[in-house]
Amino acid sequence: MAKRIASIAHAEEPMRTGPGTIAGRYLRRFWQPVYHAADLPSGRALPLRVMGQDFALYRGASGRVALFDPRCPHRGTQLASGRVEGDDLRCFYHGWKFDAAGHCIEQPAEDSRFCHKVAIRSYPVREHLGLIFAYLGDGEPPAFPHHPEFEAFDGLVEIDSYVRNCNYFQNLENALDMSHVAFVHADNRASFSDIGRGEQLSAEESSWGVAYCFTRPDGKRRVQQFGMPNVFYMNALPNDAEIGWQESLFWWVPIDDERHMQFSLHRIPATGATARRIRERRQKRRSEIDLAHQTLADDVLAGRIALASIDKSRVDLVRLQDDIAQVGQGIFADRGNERLGRADVGVIAIRKLWSRELAALRVGRGLKAWLRDASIRTEAWGIAGSLPHADADGKAASAPEIVDVRPFIEIEIQLRALNGAARG
Amino acid sequence: MAKRIASIAHAEEPMRTGPGTIAGRYLRRFWQPVYHAADLPSGRALPLRVMGQDFALYRGASGRVALFDPRCPHRGTQLASGRVEGDDLRCFYHGWKFDAAGHCIEQPAEDSRFCHKVAIRSYPVREHLGLIFAYLGDGEPPAFPHHPEFEAFDGLVEIDSYVRNCNYFQNLENALDMSHVAFVHADNRASFSDIGRGEQLSAEESSWGVAYCFTRPDGKRRVQQFGMPNVFYMNALPNDAEIGWQESLFWWVPIDDERHMQFSLHRIPATGATARRIRERRQKRRSEIDLAHQTLADDVLAGRIALASIDKSRVDLVRLQDDIAQVGQGIFADRGNERLGRADVGVIAIRKLWSRELAALRVGRGLKAWLRDASIRTEAWGIAGSLPHADADGKAASAPEIVDVRPFIEIEIQLRALNGAARG
Amino acid sequence: MAKRIASIAHAEEPMRTGPGTIAGRYLRRFWQPVYHAADLPSGRALPLRVMGQDFALYRGASGRVALFDPRCPHRGTQLASGRVEGDDLRCFYHGWKFDAAGHCIEQPAEDSRFCHKVAIRSYPVREHLGLIFAYLGDGEPPAFPHHPEFEAFDGLVEIDSYVRNCNYFQNLENALDMSHVAFVHADNRASFSDIGRGEQLSAEESSWGVAYCFTRPDGKRRVQQFGMPNVFYMNALPNDAEIGWQESLFWWVPIDDERHMQFSLHRIPATGATARRIRERRQKRRSEIDLAHQTLADDVLAGRIALASIDKSRVDLVRLQDDIAQVGQGIFADRGNERLGRADVGVIAIRKLWSRELAALRVGRGLKAWLRDASIRTEAWGIAGSLPHADADGKAASAPEIVDVRPFIEIEIQLRALNGAARG
Repeated sequence: MAKRIASIAHAEEPMRTGPGTIAGRYLRRFWQPVYHAADLPSGRALPLRVMGQDFALYRGASGRVALFDPRCPHRGTQLASGRVEGDDLRCFYHGWKFDAAGHCIEQPAEDSRFCHKVAIRSYPVREHLGLIFAYLGDGEPPAFPHHPEFEAFDGLVEIDSYVRNCNYFQNLENALDMSHVAFVHADNRASFSDIGRGEQLSAEESSWGVAYCFTRPDGKRRVQQFGMPNVFYMNALPNDAEIGWQESLFWWVPIDDERHMQFSLHRIPATGATARRIRERRQKRRSEIDLAHQTLADDVLAGRIALASIDKSRVDLVRLQDDIAQVGQGIFADRGNERLGRADVGVIAIRKLWSRELAALRVGRGLKAWLRDASIRTEAWGIAGSLPHADADGKAASAPEIVDVRPFIEIEIQLRALNGAARG
Repeated sequence: MAKRIASIAHAEEPMRTGPGTIAGRYLRRFWQPVYHAADLPSGRALPLRVMGQDFALYRGASGRVALFDPRCPHRGTQLASGRVEGDDLRCFYHGWKFDAAGHCIEQPAEDSRFCHKVAIRSYPVREHLGLIFAYLGDGEPPAFPHHPEFEAFDGLVEIDSYVRNCNYFQNLENALDMSHVAFVHADNRASFSDIGRGEQLSAEESSWGVAYCFTRPDGKRRVQQFGMPNVFYMNALPNDAEIGWQESLFWWVPIDDERHMQFSLHRIPATGATARRIRERRQKRRSEIDLAHQTLADDVLAGRIALASIDKSRVDLVRLQDDIAQVGQGIFADRGNERLGRADVGVIAIRKLWSRELAALRVGRGLKAWLRDASIRTEAWGIAGSLPHADADGKAASAPEIVDVRPFIEIEIQLRALNGAARG
Repeated sequence: MAKRIASIAHAEEPMRTGPGTIAGRYLRRFWQPVYHAADLPSGRALPLRVMGQDFALYRGASGRVALFDPRCPHRGTQLASGRVEGDDLRCFYHGWKFDAAGHCIEQPAEDSRFCHKVAIRSYPVREHLGLIFAYLGDGEPPAFPHHPEFEAFDGLVEIDSYVRNCNYFQNLENALDMSHVAFVHADNRASFSDIGRGEQLSAEESSWGVAYCFTRPDGKRRVQQFGMPNVFYMNALPNDAEIGWQESLFWWVPIDDERHMQFSLHRIPATGATARRIRERRQKRRSEIDLAHQTLADDVLAGRIALASIDKSRVDLVRLQDDIAQVGQGIFADRGNERLGRADVGVIAIRKLWSRELAALRVGRGLKAWLRDASIRTEAWGIAGSLPHADADGKAASAPEIVDVRPFIEIEIQLRALNGAARG
């Protein structure tokens, strides 16, 4: 039965995340991944855009990463074109120099040296599992969120990401939408064969966000976990014959309201020679793609290429398919005329939590303290905990090996989007 | 003597044709050509933009064409990326399926099957003389407009079109403007040598629109017919030595307010071996052009290329020249400072009819029922009815052969404009 | 000590120069260079944009230059696509013809000939030292401004220009900012080694604008002259081993509020064989650059190229560096959060004069009559008047030879910006 959610009037609110917006304020209360650590060498400064806000990101000689407001407080020149000196950053225009905490420590042309009165805002950052996380909100940052299964186990952690040219919330909603898989990904060799029918789906509020469950007629279940405000944790289908099973973590982070990054981590319990073979195959695949899925998606959506004519063996077929489903809703989807059904329980659940929290934030009511505790477990067809987890203290024999699996063309595309918007 | 039309304040009104505009409502009361039948193969769905409005256009297995609103009523994904199944269209995202009338007939993930409550708006369409016509207005469509001379006679009907990157009304006004020919098309080998001077021109309201007449000093006349709201009927100069004379029909249809399509039909009384030779020459010419006239026009208008330096033997020289005259008025011309003269009687006549009809539509007064009846005849230098017309019942020995004469590069350009705008 | 200028609220005013703006009205009260004479051959008409306003520029058969409003008063077609006939311009659409003063002198399709009632606005223009100057303001133009040292002396005048993709005022402020040189141009082989420290800098109002002075510890001075509203006069560092010393004049002229032209003249006291060798080296250098500095600057500002990786021997390195410092402030800089220091006296002085004059213009108070009189002298490290000046009457033995030194790719870029914007 068709059902329209009550909060349709507020449907756009979670989609607008620029500085000062209510959803932007909410998202900024959480640590967010903003960049790949590997894309920032020592001594390099770069412009960066996150949630419609510009920053200067750099890594000092010691390896320390810092994140600043984008412009020099003197005359407003872009700091990312400055020079990294040690762990400090010197402005290109008149040489004002800032330490990693943002204090001005040199003004070469000023004898009076009023630099102790000058500072630039510096944001807390942390490198973790190959990603640079930042806290972009006001006040003290919350505790850094941990995912012990990914932090300490014997195996590989694949690190991946892509840019999608639509609002991040469209991708986030797509996570708790099991029934799209049978259609959007129908062509995939390794796709799920069952349609997630409405009666088989449930979405319950959890300590962390939403527990999303699909129960088959034989009683076997698939349980996935959505973590507020924009994280997803699931057992994923492996796409390499030597990988038996894997777990994945996803974040959807706006670049601005018209495009976003998906960052993901995939933990794989392979070691030794197996891990080496997997790594080699991954490395080889990175150069296999010569045409970005974003470009292909534009061509399909503009009628220039028929989806049916696209090579089904493309490494990034799933992304292309999701591009079409999500960007095809419009770059910034209009939710005013939807007809949601029973199969949309996941989408409805996410919207309800967001709506409730944004309403609370607006009037200053207490917000729920989301917690990824022991109750947050994933499951797939009855098999839970299939991977060697860390022990109760989060300690294991070794840290995983981090493997970057991004196609090279994807890196090109995403750096243009992440770095390139900051000039205007 | 210079004359400013009274309705100058309303000059922009006929130019704005998006949904809800007064001119948009008026244009939508008439069947309009929107696409070439040949550009829509069976089993293909495409996004389409007409008058600033987006649609999903597809052709089913049986050959039937359907035209829908652009987005799935479920979650808003672009329907043109869906799959054609028989004569139905299935959404790419969750598989909701619609028949050609727009009724939802399947919702695979919904057990409750509320699809009988769901429908998408489907617009009446009709294939005719190689074009797909649509009725985009409210209520029942009017009778389909016939042009019996083109529908039944022994000969060829050439079908052609192009996109021009300016408001459609600028092109429409250009039709009843005989005096531009001697200047804009001065370089053409086959151009009219006489300037249409103001005293020799008349424009009278007809049953269909405007009868536009140019009388030479020797008494010979050229009579052309403008049909409300955006049709033109004339004897055209042939551009092939084996064609003695031809008649043409034109439509100017907005893609949006900043670009439009000209669709045209040209009937040519050639049969047998002559027709075959003409067809072959036409086919050969389609690949002759490697640079679109729209691109050249941009270069000329931006001062990068002097018009005088362009090859006068270009197949599309007339279009390039008209591009410069019309796009050169601005993409959306400002009519606030014009100084119209006696030679602008055609332009003035069109504006008066449009102004009167839009005023009537605005207040709900009766609109004139334009009719292409027997009084609507064209003439050229005293020769009328030179082509074998159909008999009084619109029946002739045979249907004409339809020949697509569009340059291939023009098709590329126009499909980008017609299909490509629908994503946003 | 940091100091915020009082007029911060009006910081944007001098930056907006479109028709009707207060700064646009002020700038239009002065003759402005708008084009290179060499870029306008006889018989050519071109669209031109200056200060966000469109024009038609052409040169008649006699060599006379004329500048018109952009559109034909008849039907609004762009006049720059018309045909130059003698010293007149004929519209492409219906052949209306205008003489260089803007009077309509032919209307071929109009027997009544109301052309004596029709005129197009024609702006005063003057060719001078290789540039076309125009007066775009109301009423009679002021006396044409002379720079006798450049007009009559034995030597070369190099003429140069470039387009920069940011507001013109950012470049203008950069002129009176000695302390940026040690940082922005630190890599240059011939750069000044001294930092202009705040205590060593002064900026005093002069009869012409601002006298800007840098005094070294050894008492030697560098004096540069800013001329209201947008001119700069200085001794420049030569970039050719055979040039001992040179003087330069600069103008910054908006194309629109997001990009501008810098026009410059450089007088060099070389004659005979020396002049010939310099000329030959200049000519050779014009084709040395295959990548525009504007494109490189975009790449640097978007993080795609590190400035440190760019070839320091580039002919246009100084321009690239200034692109980064100035465009890096944003295309239209936000001055709301600046922390100006003692070293910014030049910037503060320019803003004060502009603020005062715009305030006077707004309320109709008298404006200062800026005058480049004998008090306006430049100096460099104690050497003034090093070049052979003209005598008191502005007469010298000979007129200088004009040498165009623009890189060819720069001409491509700038003509696209100057001519290409006029269509819309």
